[in-house]
Amino acid sequence: MLREAVDQLPAPLRLMAGYHYGWWDSTGRPTPGRSGKGLRAALVLAAAAACGIVGPTVVSAAASIEMLHNWTLIHDDVIDADEMRHGRPTVWRVWGSDAALVLGDAMHAMTIRMLLDLPAAQMAEAVDRLETVTVELCRGQYEDCLFESRPSVTVGEYMQMVGGKTGALMGCACALGALCAYADAATIGAFDSFGRELGAAFQAADDVLGIVGDPAVTGKPVGTDLIRRKRSLPVVAALESGASAAVDLDELYRSAAPMTNTEVAQATQLVAACGGIDWAQQHAQLRAQSALAALPAGAATAELAALTQAAVRRVQ
Amino acid sequence: MLREAVDQLPAPLRLMAGYHYGWWDSTGRPTPGRSGKGLRAALVLAAAAACGIVGPTVVSAAASIEMLHNWTLIHDDVIDADEMRHGRPTVWRVWGSDAALVLGDAMHAMTIRMLLDLPAAQMAEAVDRLETVTVELCRGQYEDCLFESRPSVTVGEYMQMVGGKTGALMGCACALGALCAYADAATIGAFDSFGRELGAAFQAADDVLGIVGDPAVTGKPVGTDLIRRKRSLPVVAALESGASAAVDLDELYRSAAPMTNTEVAQATQLVAACGGIDWAQQHAQLRAQSALAALPAGAATAELAALTQAAVRRVQ
Repeated sequence: MLREAVDQLPAPLRLMAGYHYGWWDSTGRPTPGRSGKGLRAALVLAAAAACGIVGPTVVSAAASIEMLHNWTLIHDDVIDADEMRHGRPTVWRVWGSDAALVLGDAMHAMTIRMLLDLPAAQMAEAVDRLETVTVELCRGQYEDCLFESRPSVTVGEYMQMVGGKTGALMGCACALGALCAYADAATIGAFDSFGRELGAAFQAADDVLGIVGDPAVTGKPVGTDLIRRKRSLPVVAALESGASAAVDLDELYRSAAPMTNTEVAQATQLVAACGGIDWAQQHAQLRAQSALAALPAGAATAELAALTQAAVRRVQ
Repeated sequence: MLREAVDQLPAPLRLMAGYHYGWWDSTGRPTPGRSGKGLRAALVLAAAAACGIVGPTVVSAAASIEMLHNWTLIHDDVIDADEMRHGRPTVWRVWGSDAALVLGDAMHAMTIRMLLDLPAAQMAEAVDRLETVTVELCRGQYEDCLFESRPSVTVGEYMQMVGGKTGALMGCACALGALCAYADAATIGAFDSFGRELGAAFQAADDVLGIVGDPAVTGKPVGTDLIRRKRSLPVVAALESGASAAVDLDELYRSAAPMTNTEVAQATQLVAACGGIDWAQQHAQLRAQSALAALPAGAATAELAALTQAAVRRVQ
């Protein structure tokens, strides 16, 4: 379904979209490139299955969520000046930021068009949920931009930002699965809460990877978040820890220039010394438990439990 | 309705959106600033009225089209590095291009949410038309970007680009008006053709203003398109004219640096000497006539004729 949607784009945009998905290289030659994890699509399918439904309607919704996630990634890479994703140069790095902006806009449009095949009773609510969550994502992304120019960010402010940037979309994915399965409003709400908690867990785990992740697994340079002095969860927690190493870490975060390799190694040690990495790992586990606890009785299927583990296992 | 939609945005995005619309300054203080012309919204209302319907449904559709037009302007200003719109600094110039990118994405989402109040029978088609046209706009905008790095552009290529960049949205506005008035598919198609022709006429007139327009009227610097060596219709027509002045104009367009004031004055004279300005003015008139001819019998109301005149009168 994603390939069908991409096929409907005009030629130059189609080329870029398929490159982003890892289906072909920048000249259009098929490659065995890595795509994303497809976690959000899997959540739609697993949530619908937990509510007793599988079938083509649910697949449309899953593909649409995946398309939404990907156009926001393409825009986020422009904003964050990220040069690598899935082990290859990002779209803006290959075709320029103007092209990446336009491609994201066109994929936003396709995201919505993919929902128009849903039964009438569900379609309006599905579109409303996706576009409401899009506004939340934009709010989260903008807060994230503002963080970069601020002298300090509290753990509370960070959680609020991540709620918009990651939690809202995972909540929407799970709610959409329940909606496609004709669940009642309370059940849809419970699945939304599950997804939001899972998103918080996932982001905490992802933030740990941004500091100590293996480039062969993440597809990004080692210490990628530290290089840009990003105030990710382990860093924010470390700075708030009151540990003596926090003073040195704060010093390192005061400059605006990208960190050198030596500084990245130093910062990694300081974040660890303040307990920031352990705290973020523990936080990921706690939010994962809280996610499962939010599910309606009997809805915690083996699939949903496995996806929850997959989202946080990455840091164990 | 636009204000209600903007009110639903999170605070920092709401501030930027209202600034863009000219409702308040960059700190939120109400201003008597100029908004856009509202031509596309007027086309929705006039098309629906020509098909016999007025009312709140049509106003939703009109407000949605206007929101679509404005988020694409906010993104286009980033891409084209345009610093002024409606006589004030553009959103990216005030808050940075990252903020403008995120604001455009959030307004894209609101564009679609505004259509969800339409009667069920019309809503799915309306959303489909808007998002299909969005992909066309992206295609047109991308082609326009590519033109800037090309040594030459034919009149035919220019027309194709403008069809996506301006014609598609005006066609969609008129089709949407007819759709809200429960018109049949043939009538909707005729209104789409009317809008597309009108869009071509409007863009030709707008391109003339980009060369000889009064800054007090356009809100942009004099010769704004020439400064950036934009290959707008009068320029493309002049270069294709075979006139001897075309050789000198071609020479001026070979450099990549912004034109100096002297060069802008020189280029303006050369475009005029090649007949480029006259040709574009005539083309605007021809396409305006062709627009009215595309309307179904009896549908060319005084309102639609007046809007058609307004779109091209600007150059007379």
